[in-house]
Amino acid sequence: MSRYPEPDHALAASLFAQLAAQGHDGVGITRDTYGDGENAAHALLAAAAVSRGLEVRRDAACNLYMTLPGRNRSTSAVMTGSHLDSVPRGGNFDGAAGVVAGLAILSGWRRANTTPERDVTVMAIRAEESAWFPVSYAGSKAAFGLLDAGTLDLCRADTGRTLADHLRASGGDPGGVVAGTPALHADEIDCFVELHIEQGPVLDESTDVLGVVTGICGSQRYRHASIRGQYAHSGATPRSHRRDAVVAAAALITALQRAWVALESAGHELTVTVGQCMTDAAQADFSKVSGRVDFSIDMRSRNRATLDAMDAAVQAARVDIMRNCGVDVDLGPLTSSAPAAMDAALQTLLMGAAAQAGVPARAMPSGAGHDAALFAAQGVPAAMLFVRNANGSHNPDESMRLDDFAQATRVLAAVLAERAGVSHFTVSSNTCQSA
Amino acid sequence: MSRYPEPDHALAASLFAQLAAQGHDGVGITRDTYGDGENAAHALLAAAAVSRGLEVRRDAACNLYMTLPGRNRSTSAVMTGSHLDSVPRGGNFDGAAGVVAGLAILSGWRRANTTPERDVTVMAIRAEESAWFPVSYAGSKAAFGLLDAGTLDLCRADTGRTLADHLRASGGDPGGVVAGTPALHADEIDCFVELHIEQGPVLDESTDVLGVVTGICGSQRYRHASIRGQYAHSGATPRSHRRDAVVAAAALITALQRAWVALESAGHELTVTVGQCMTDAAQADFSKVSGRVDFSIDMRSRNRATLDAMDAAVQAARVDIMRNCGVDVDLGPLTSSAPAAMDAALQTLLMGAAAQAGVPARAMPSGAGHDAALFAAQGVPAAMLFVRNANGSHNPDESMRLDDFAQATRVLAAVLAERAGVSHFTVSSNTCQSA
Repeated sequence: MSRYPEPDHALAASLFAQLAAQGHDGVGITRDTYGDGENAAHALLAAAAVSRGLEVRRDAACNLYMTLPGRNRSTSAVMTGSHLDSVPRGGNFDGAAGVVAGLAILSGWRRANTTPERDVTVMAIRAEESAWFPVSYAGSKAAFGLLDAGTLDLCRADTGRTLADHLRASGGDPGGVVAGTPALHADEIDCFVELHIEQGPVLDESTDVLGVVTGICGSQRYRHASIRGQYAHSGATPRSHRRDAVVAAAALITALQRAWVALESAGHELTVTVGQCMTDAAQADFSKVSGRVDFSIDMRSRNRATLDAMDAAVQAARVDIMRNCGVDVDLGPLTSSAPAAMDAALQTLLMGAAAQAGVPARAMPSGAGHDAALFAAQGVPAAMLFVRNANGSHNPDESMRLDDFAQATRVLAAVLAERAGVSHFTVSSNTCQSA
Repeated sequence: MSRYPEPDHALAASLFAQLAAQGHDGVGITRDTYGDGENAAHALLAAAAVSRGLEVRRDAACNLYMTLPGRNRSTSAVMTGSHLDSVPRGGNFDGAAGVVAGLAILSGWRRANTTPERDVTVMAIRAEESAWFPVSYAGSKAAFGLLDAGTLDLCRADTGRTLADHLRASGGDPGGVVAGTPALHADEIDCFVELHIEQGPVLDESTDVLGVVTGICGSQRYRHASIRGQYAHSGATPRSHRRDAVVAAAALITALQRAWVALESAGHELTVTVGQCMTDAAQADFSKVSGRVDFSIDMRSRNRATLDAMDAAVQAARVDIMRNCGVDVDLGPLTSSAPAAMDAALQTLLMGAAAQAGVPARAMPSGAGHDAALFAAQGVPAAMLFVRNANGSHNPDESMRLDDFAQATRVLAAVLAERAGVSHFTVSSNTCQSA
């Protein structure tokens, strides 16, 4: 039994069901960034917030803020939330779970007539999934006034239309994003606590239900790397005369795997992924030596020095492959995001709330990037709570149990209540309706 | 100065120019099998043959036969020719050179009022480039009555329409192909000599202009192989938990390269090519571990035992990769064509004619497959004459010099004249007009 008003679990279940119905693409869930999918999800959550009597506003980047006003509105606010967009053919919970949890908590508090000392704001953040636009944390960057004008000219991978164009079509104001007053100021935020499904198998394979995040990996990415060799007849071209882009790509990928293993053996924590690797659909043929392969490299670590060491290995492999395979390797532009440590006090609060609620939890790093990293970089005390989830994320099979989600929501509620000044007295008057 | 009537070099140059103009696709040359490109080329060559007074006929598979009648029409005919289709974005000479050479020779003989003892037929063969339909030598197989009915149901890679459908739209008769009287009978053919550009760099890097082919490689191909792993978040999935299709593909390709090197070191002649290798365009992402890679394997050798040894290496690598990478490797159906030895007497005639004409030539194998292999398999004495060509073939940059082609055409003419019974007397009366 919680010491605070029970979150509105029925609302959460209903929102998940509606999000799944409106986002289903035939295979998985698609909520495209600044497109119909994300816009519909924002409309759904905003309507739910209005119906619960919360204050609702949007900034120039169409981030959504749903606030339960506190008694002292001039003090810094407690924030929670996450993003509502998804990768193409992704799952229903990645991102949305954090927004739904926040709304379920505030709905529960409204139902219990709870008024915290501080404002508590659930933020539905835009554009977290960089599968659409090649930029990390565009929504939260915009909220803090950190998005530079050039980013608005980036094109979405599928539509080819600019971020500015998509933002305008979603009801936003590109000019206001770069020149207006930022919606968020670090000194007006007490803390930001983001609930998110775990995207890997660590919790699912343990006995723990929750993960309290110690730090968020930064990334270094070559999204548009390519190898140029020479197309040639597969039967008539001796091995010595080949400049085979496929063989070179295989050698490069194998070298990157070796470098990853070596760094792990030396105590580094990181991931290295070539998620895309393809010969040219128009020119490649089974009877041709391939003249071109396009590929991506994604490196992630909580440690900047680890990222730099892995990048050095990439550069060395590039030189080797160019010399040994007679090809040209162009890594293309490097994009990166910085690693971020989570706030120690919030981690302690989260672990304590989990223990109090009897929910098994562990401290763990986040291999994936999250908006909480951007809040942390701005000096906001930030934390993350992971919920056990089977089958990973970024795929249609992600599968968080609603029981686990309910436990996580209670733990999050306790920490938000602690920080926002929800008195136990208010709570005890409502225990009759908590499960 | 040739001992035989000079080929009609002007006709050859004109035909090459017209073929290039009608086949240009913006990047290279596309003469699609049983499509507009191949059909237009056949129409062009047929019209040229009619204008030179040759007999022109087509069989049920739309192969084109252009014949200079001999004095004795009941004896076996001398045949030359090649194919007119090209790979997508290929070059102008692969295939077409052999048909144009034959027509230039017969045009020259007509001009010189030469009547050979035997019929001499230039065959423009259909469907040699298996980039379109997944079958080797479909046109020449059909001419010999060897195409089975199932082949007519194969679909073209780009249109998805069946071979029967494309054949019908080109004016052919699918029923006649499988059930009618074959257009060709081995015992009615004295020999088949095919002129073709060399598709590799061997002649171009030597001082030789011509290659007399000793044998044609057979092939074993897995055109539709795939690796299935599991999509997973690139940042949140530890290395130990990955079933990465890209890493598995890299390991497999590297293993195939090693096996190729080992077989070459042991004295085998072969080529091994992974020409296509691609993650799924719809599902792959730079931030996902890849769950699927599709790829092709093409193995070629003049030696059946070598092909079998390489295939055994492929199977072994498959088992290794499945065990080591946690993926499933499905090689898909194996298609193959048999190696073929070229006729020794024809090789001697070709080498002799080249020596007589003072054109440097060498004996060499053909790594690529050619219709001459199908003729040889039917018991027809078959041979091939390669012409030096820069930049390989199956690409827009293939570049045969017309001077080299003219010399090759004279050598081919001499051998056809020898076999068809063109008397030197007839020739000498026309030397005044030969160059």
